[in-house]
Amino acid sequence: MANGVNVDQLVGTIQAIQGNPGLAAFKFRSTSRWDGGAKSKTTIRAFYGAGQEDASRKESYVLAGDEPPVLLGTNTAPNAVEAVLAALSSCLTVSFIYPAAAHGVKVESFELTMEGDVDLHGFLKLSDKVRPGFQNIRVTARVKADAPRATIQQLLDHAIATSPVMDSLRNPVPVTVSLA
Amino acid sequence: MANGVNVDQLVGTIQAIQGNPGLAAFKFRSTSRWDGGAKSKTTIRAFYGAGQEDASRKESYVLAGDEPPVLLGTNTAPNAVEAVLAALSSCLTVSFIYPAAAHGVKVESFELTMEGDVDLHGFLKLSDKVRPGFQNIRVTARVKADAPRATIQQLLDHAIATSPVMDSLRNPVPVTVSLA
Repeated sequence: MANGVNVDQLVGTIQAIQGNPGLAAFKFRSTSRWDGGAKSKTTIRAFYGAGQEDASRKESYVLAGDEPPVLLGTNTAPNAVEAVLAALSSCLTVSFIYPAAAHGVKVESFELTMEGDVDLHGFLKLSDKVRPGFQNIRVTARVKADAPRATIQQLLDHAIATSPVMDSLRNPVPVTVSLA
Repeated sequence: MANGVNVDQLVGTIQAIQGNPGLAAFKFRSTSRWDGGAKSKTTIRAFYGAGQEDASRKESYVLAGDEPPVLLGTNTAPNAVEAVLAALSSCLTVSFIYPAAAHGVKVESFELTMEGDVDLHGFLKLSDKVRPGFQNIRVTARVKADAPRATIQQLLDHAIATSPVMDSLRNPVPVTVSLA
């Protein structure tokens, strides 16, 4: 174990995928229900990966969404773009910690602060020239680890390059929506 | 009130922004801390919008991230890409419900199921040809409302076009990361 990560299992996973590339295909899923006003609840449990349906989760996770009053909500949960910052944080953390563990770098702390700009002209369709989504996101990483700063920067660059959520934000994801 | 949304406030917000475009600029923020292994916690509270720092939230929201055992985690929270599906769900819901309220369409239920494909070859850097992020996301919407299906489809198309998280996934977001 390093940084709380089972490095033998990580190496084993990589070798298993090299022997059987199909094991790398994962399907993640969610179900959400509107709860009135700006509120919704999203339930997450089942996923497919490593060649089978996962059976390890005994309970579902429920993630709530809402808006602050200035955006017509009731302040019971973060809003959707804030939830994206949380997802990016979680992703960059894993994408840093796993390779650090594999390279024998012991991490003491890893913190991220983020700020992202959104202009409501897009969401409210008041301008065709303003995108609805994030205009940009600024991330600051604070890392304490038993490695030189250059190594920490290399690991951070690696995390940025391999983080699934970072890639999903920086590069276009095809999303299809159908009405049942 | 319609669909739990204060339509007068919505109209007032639009008029206020038309009179003072700077009110539409929002900055959303997060702070995250690694909790060992795949675990992290992201704290969300303060944001800037409508010309000032928000003071309405009395408490922070804390969002946890982890991975399932097959991805070297401990199943205490959804993983990062699942959190993105939750964020997209929350966002499409608000982006549907608000305009529905403004157009006098009474919504009885609004549900979304999502599935997204991720191939670990990207995250594990086993191939330069496989992206780390979502290869695609499929969304199915189930809507009950007092409107013809064509109107519901129009509102859904509007939500898809104006949802900040949908736009952030479909189109590139510039993200900068600096090491403190």
